[in-house]
Amino acid sequence: MTRTPFVYELIVRLHDADAAGVIFYGHLFRHFHDAYESFMDSIGFPLHRAIRPQEPSDALCLPIMQANAELALPLRHGMRVRVLLEVEEVRERSFAIVYRVVDSAGQVYARGRTLHVLTEPGSGRRPRLPEGLRQALGSRNRARPSTD
Amino acid sequence: MTRTPFVYELIVRLHDADAAGVIFYGHLFRHFHDAYESFMDSIGFPLHRAIRPQEPSDALCLPIMQANAELALPLRHGMRVRVLLEVEEVRERSFAIVYRVVDSAGQVYARGRTLHVLTEPGSGRRPRLPEGLRQALGSRNRARPSTD
Amino acid sequence: MTRTPFVYELIVRLHDADAAGVIFYGHLFRHFHDAYESFMDSIGFPLHRAIRPQEPSDALCLPIMQANAELALPLRHGMRVRVLLEVEEVRERSFAIVYRVVDSAGQVYARGRTLHVLTEPGSGRRPRLPEGLRQALGSRNRARPSTD
Amino acid sequence: MTRTPFVYELIVRLHDADAAGVIFYGHLFRHFHDAYESFMDSIGFPLHRAIRPQEPSDALCLPIMQANAELALPLRHGMRVRVLLEVEEVRERSFAIVYRVVDSAGQVYARGRTLHVLTEPGSGRRPRLPEGLRQALGSRNRARPSTD
Repeated sequence: MTRTPFVYELIVRLHDADAAGVIFYGHLFRHFHDAYESFMDSIGFPLHRAIRPQEPSDALCLPIMQANAELALPLRHGMRVRVLLEVEEVRERSFAIVYRVVDSAGQVYARGRTLHVLTEPGSGRRPRLPEGLRQALGSRNRARPSTD
Repeated sequence: MTRTPFVYELIVRLHDADAAGVIFYGHLFRHFHDAYESFMDSIGFPLHRAIRPQEPSDALCLPIMQANAELALPLRHGMRVRVLLEVEEVRERSFAIVYRVVDSAGQVYARGRTLHVLTEPGSGRRPRLPEGLRQALGSRNRARPSTD
Repeated sequence: MTRTPFVYELIVRLHDADAAGVIFYGHLFRHFHDAYESFMDSIGFPLHRAIRPQEPSDALCLPIMQANAELALPLRHGMRVRVLLEVEEVRERSFAIVYRVVDSAGQVYARGRTLHVLTEPGSGRRPRLPEGLRQALGSRNRARPSTD
Repeated sequence: MTRTPFVYELIVRLHDADAAGVIFYGHLFRHFHDAYESFMDSIGFPLHRAIRPQEPSDALCLPIMQANAELALPLRHGMRVRVLLEVEEVRERSFAIVYRVVDSAGQVYARGRTLHVLTEPGSGRRPRLPEGLRQALGSRNRARPSTD
């Protein structure tokens, strides 16, 4: 079974590129996060409501505890690319998102991965992901075995 | 009577400059704010304690409601400059900070100004500045009449 | 005669808001610039081609030499707003862009203005705007007298 | 033999923290890069001169092709920490830098690693690192075997 990745459109803007003319690697992570927020909106878990819900006790804090990226080819000012996002894995207390930055010809410019761990802000304890979130993430789970 | 401006050292870093090779104007405002935070630390009103004090009722929110900048000369990657910060004015419910970015020869590259207004987060009401903050700011007030 | 402003859609993302929960003023300028780049794309003068054209002698550098903003109401994480962009003025060697950030009800959250001055990178000389750019900008010029 | 890491002082500023109150992970990479630029200054290879040398043919482009971070504990607005930087490895065409963010008690908040690959901007070819750069980096190489 194959699922379609979530697509986030991206144009590399003036401030994304640095003095060397290509995207600054820290800004690539910002774009990954914008793709992730759009994705979370799309599955009914917008981050702003997770962080500041009507009932403070309902707050879901999902800090990124691991992040990595490979920058294979230079992303230059003005390029129009897409971030393809997939849920790589949903665990009991965490989930991982993977990203590929591709152009219209399918050429891969960059890849990334973020690990999100449910954490109680005060105590630092790590409760289980709510079932609703697990299911929403699972519905977009990456097909296995993956051929990526 | 003349007072010395607060000095904040700044090196223009790779990500500060954009694809055109000079500082991105939005990042200049980030540096103004770093200078402002350092200044507030120096007068005993660190922003993180103002925003999240031990007693929530003591919170002081001072959002910037006006900001402007003139970028006279290009600030390039690698330049070592200083942000000279002065309290331009302290009013009943607000204060204004002015910034000059200068090199070691005194050449001015940029100027800026931010207006900070005490605001109650929930209601949007604008109370008076606490006397302690007024005095701390006033002690660094810009000399008048200014010849700047 | 009235012209319609150029519209840029914006969602306030996690990293736009700072520790005080509202948009960091420097990031507002980043969004102004993204709106401006989209606008320049739309009138046939994409910035990446202006900065790095096929013929280096055709380069058009249009640094922002003045910028200002008023932040009337807090822009919070998750808000969906629009940046309405208008060409305020086209002069011989420069032009000014104005921005309004509004929600779907027309409530204004912020305003801004940027002044762009054609500048030769090496010499700092300020040539006249090419006629094609003047006309493209003029076609989106703000109606006068403005009732804004 | 043990070498001392390069130390970069860091205060978590208002705009570093996001709407959830802790440092935005993309900004952590910006700070890693500031530490890296300071380090490169300290060993006599400032990036701005590497990217735009007097002789364009002397340009050294060292794009980051891999980056990763672990964010173990929340870095909050106002925290004063240090980025400890070490050269992990110097290869023929690349080198790796590792980072630890620690407080004054030695508590580790975050770790990171960046891989820098010498690349010719036009062709994408990957020449050997100049001997001077190899030696400068090697002089700060992490002791082996590492007990970290």
